[in-house]
Amino acid sequence: MKSSFTRSCMEKLQPYVPGEQPKIKGLLKLNTNENPYSPSPRVLHAIRRKLDDGLRMYPDPTSDRLRMKIASVYGFHLNQVIAGNGSDDILNMSVRAFVDEGERVQFPHPTYSLYPVLVQIQNGRIHQIPFGANFNIDPSAFDSRAPLTLIANPNAPSGTILSQKILRDLVRRLKGVLLIDEAYVDFAQENSMALARRARNVLVTRSLSKSFSLAGMRLGFAVGHAALVEALFKVKDSYNLDRLAQAAGEAALSDMAYHRRCVTRIVRTRERFRKELERRGWVCFPSQANFLFVRPAGPPAIAWLTKLRTRKILVRWFNAPETRDYLRITIGTDSQMNHFLSVLDQGAGQKSYHLPQPLLAKEGNGEIYCQW
Amino acid sequence: MKSSFTRSCMEKLQPYVPGEQPKIKGLLKLNTNENPYSPSPRVLHAIRRKLDDGLRMYPDPTSDRLRMKIASVYGFHLNQVIAGNGSDDILNMSVRAFVDEGERVQFPHPTYSLYPVLVQIQNGRIHQIPFGANFNIDPSAFDSRAPLTLIANPNAPSGTILSQKILRDLVRRLKGVLLIDEAYVDFAQENSMALARRARNVLVTRSLSKSFSLAGMRLGFAVGHAALVEALFKVKDSYNLDRLAQAAGEAALSDMAYHRRCVTRIVRTRERFRKELERRGWVCFPSQANFLFVRPAGPPAIAWLTKLRTRKILVRWFNAPETRDYLRITIGTDSQMNHFLSVLDQGAGQKSYHLPQPLLAKEGNGEIYCQW
Repeated sequence: MKSSFTRSCMEKLQPYVPGEQPKIKGLLKLNTNENPYSPSPRVLHAIRRKLDDGLRMYPDPTSDRLRMKIASVYGFHLNQVIAGNGSDDILNMSVRAFVDEGERVQFPHPTYSLYPVLVQIQNGRIHQIPFGANFNIDPSAFDSRAPLTLIANPNAPSGTILSQKILRDLVRRLKGVLLIDEAYVDFAQENSMALARRARNVLVTRSLSKSFSLAGMRLGFAVGHAALVEALFKVKDSYNLDRLAQAAGEAALSDMAYHRRCVTRIVRTRERFRKELERRGWVCFPSQANFLFVRPAGPPAIAWLTKLRTRKILVRWFNAPETRDYLRITIGTDSQMNHFLSVLDQGAGQKSYHLPQPLLAKEGNGEIYCQW
Repeated sequence: MKSSFTRSCMEKLQPYVPGEQPKIKGLLKLNTNENPYSPSPRVLHAIRRKLDDGLRMYPDPTSDRLRMKIASVYGFHLNQVIAGNGSDDILNMSVRAFVDEGERVQFPHPTYSLYPVLVQIQNGRIHQIPFGANFNIDPSAFDSRAPLTLIANPNAPSGTILSQKILRDLVRRLKGVLLIDEAYVDFAQENSMALARRARNVLVTRSLSKSFSLAGMRLGFAVGHAALVEALFKVKDSYNLDRLAQAAGEAALSDMAYHRRCVTRIVRTRERFRKELERRGWVCFPSQANFLFVRPAGPPAIAWLTKLRTRKILVRWFNAPETRDYLRITIGTDSQMNHFLSVLDQGAGQKSYHLPQPLLAKEGNGEIYCQW
């Protein structure tokens, strides 16, 4: 349905399609990069303590206690930190703070599919720079005058990472802001925090969805030069984080030992699972995230997607020329990944299950596979 | 601090300044229109039930269960309802969906001070139409071609309401979208839901912050023509409401009896308190909200603001020519309002208290009174 009241730049907009979240018993959800382990018990405890009469009062608009915790854990000043309703909230603020109508926002391709949506809403110009071999980039291919450059590092859906050397080279060339989206970086071997501390045009965003097991709470943050953070504050929703989310974030960041244990386990499972896939002829990109981007052996990716679905396993497939030969598989527990492998190894004659179509199918413009 | 990376339209932007939220014992907070009564016990129960392993998983991106509840309570179809991270989130989406750069957004003046901020961020043109006597409007004074018209009804900070007849007249004249912001309407005698059901260019927004005692949870929604709601969905953040907020909203809307009891009590207190103020020579606008907008007797408003502050009572004062003779006083419980009146009636010699300056004072451009 078209509304004649809508801005013309909205008419062609394809909204971001989140991964499917069906509520079906016994489903193995390896499609949205959620953490298989529970959040720290401290998080539930902190939320429980906030469940009182206080809910009738507004939250702290600037999430000061949470920001102080972030500042102390990651080594920044308070005015270099902003908290978001998920790191998507921060990405949105960044586009709004730095990009004028008609201006370029550049990012490698393929990457997180929310980026082009945010640029279109801002009526900016999307400038996609194809990744080179093995998902590397050539910094000189970027437009030095673009007001905003977005780099997901590790990248989604590839799971690959750019070196700090490459990123430092890129920063030096750019006159605009470089936002490094580190949603998956806790599963990687290096990160860009030092760059964010030093450079005047770098923002690093983080998410508590994956490595802190808090996708359900919508918690993210950004750190960087105080002037950039101040610009984000100007466009921030007045009370972007509710009382419980602020308490949850603070508690999660107070239990870094738990966090490290979960991350270590997932990284170990990822490496073991990758070797098992490779032993079966599947081609895996080297991953520094909590998922693998793989080209299956035998039947094409789309066939595997469907077959896995009949075995109650959801993985994600992106319907674009660069990605349609691949599956993105979230890393779960060891036993979940063993189950995945056993399904690969079984032939025909297994009990098959007809999984209903996604609830959101009708909103996906017919391309329902995009949601998986 | 200015950042050379920021959009030029941001340079002059005065961000919205929320009311002060100090954490001081024994304070009577009548400055941010919070509800003095606790949220329904069902809300706390529903959140507690969600405090489990599920937090590691993404929330429903479209808040379907909450939207179904809203649809059933208020008599709309599911595709006519969108949920927001507070109704501010919906206001933001509306500006983004309907207003192109340089286009007019019109609203009466003075009103909710977030409106001009949202328009500036969108680089639209603010078109303020001064209220007439007693905060009435003349529909013919509005620009029929403006893509978006915002009407807070009841209005803040005046607490006054426009009649349905006036609003119907306004809708007929407008070629763009009319958004009726009903954050306070549960304390009023009529509302615009019937208009939202019928007209193709009307959106009505609601908040659970005030009448449902859930300011701390960030919950709002909009209802209206399906095409308008679809446009809002296009610019909505992928997962704008976390799992606990969705459950809280659904539970709150399942206990309408509790909601009505709280609202009835506040309305009764408001009327009693108004009569007491008028008996003391204070001039009150007729309020249909959970606050009163009053011109104090004797010393000017700013002096009362300061005096009340020394007695640990916070009220709100807006530093603009049209508002600076007035105070906005939130309606609390009967005993809280009795305490307020007893402070008015006491002369000198009372125990005075030096309340620290607001935490956010430094961000308020020196005009710290604006935050009260």
